[in-house]
Amino acid sequence: MQVHQILRSKPKQSVITVKPATSIADAARLLAERRIGAVIVSNDGKAPLGILSERDIVRDLGRRGSVCLTDTVEALMTRNLVSCENSESADSVLEKMTAGRFRHMPVMDGADMIGIISIGDVVAARISELAMEKDALANMIMGN
Amino acid sequence: MQVHQILRSKPKQSVITVKPATSIADAARLLAERRIGAVIVSNDGKAPLGILSERDIVRDLGRRGSVCLTDTVEALMTRNLVSCENSESADSVLEKMTAGRFRHMPVMDGADMIGIISIGDVVAARISELAMEKDALANMIMGN
Repeated sequence: MQVHQILRSKPKQSVITVKPATSIADAARLLAERRIGAVIVSNDGKAPLGILSERDIVRDLGRRGSVCLTDTVEALMTRNLVSCENSESADSVLEKMTAGRFRHMPVMDGADMIGIISIGDVVAARISELAMEKDALANMIMGN
Repeated sequence: MQVHQILRSKPKQSVITVKPATSIADAARLLAERRIGAVIVSNDGKAPLGILSERDIVRDLGRRGSVCLTDTVEALMTRNLVSCENSESADSVLEKMTAGRFRHMPVMDGADMIGIISIGDVVAARISELAMEKDALANMIMGN
């Protein structure tokens, strides 16, 4: 199972991004409106500069209180963004997400971002793949 | 694979709870300090009244702005809390979480809460179980 197969199974939509100068309050509004857990930070919608998640916002809110809401996305975003390629395996992506403890990853085609996948997308794909492989083996044993 | 097997594999700790009258700001501080994504709301630490997640906080922040921070947990928490029993299967829990689109579930022993499991716990258990079953079938075919 490769990343492009997982991307294909998701509803087609352009990647949602915010600009680095956006306020945290506006970013929270965007997350709420679009019902997403994280958003890619980008100036041109193609080159990712970082990512901002619900978790980042609540952690900062817990530490510093409401003063964080007027800060910019750029100040709070995670900069060392791990991405993947279209041809990468679901297993490799899942490993990166588990090791780095994050849930969203941009999918790159060279320097351009072409999608985003979440740990939920990858896990669903991996579970259905394992179940299919198991059934195929069980059928071999039953002689079907 | 049953819920009690998954609970046993987690580091032993008491369930973290907040009281319903706690402010959202204080709840955000607790989530940040304990590095958790959601907290059970309870008066006595045993009977769950609801659950409050990072997502609930960011959604409300996005809708209403910083005014929400002085509200109580009781006003924002999800009340129709779905729980599971110790003897329930991982599959059944995963189904409930996927259908209800939530990530955390209290584990009950009668009326008392004895733990909390996250979708990450269940998925890790389910993937390792499926991989083991697949290996066992492959070994049967290879005649080992």
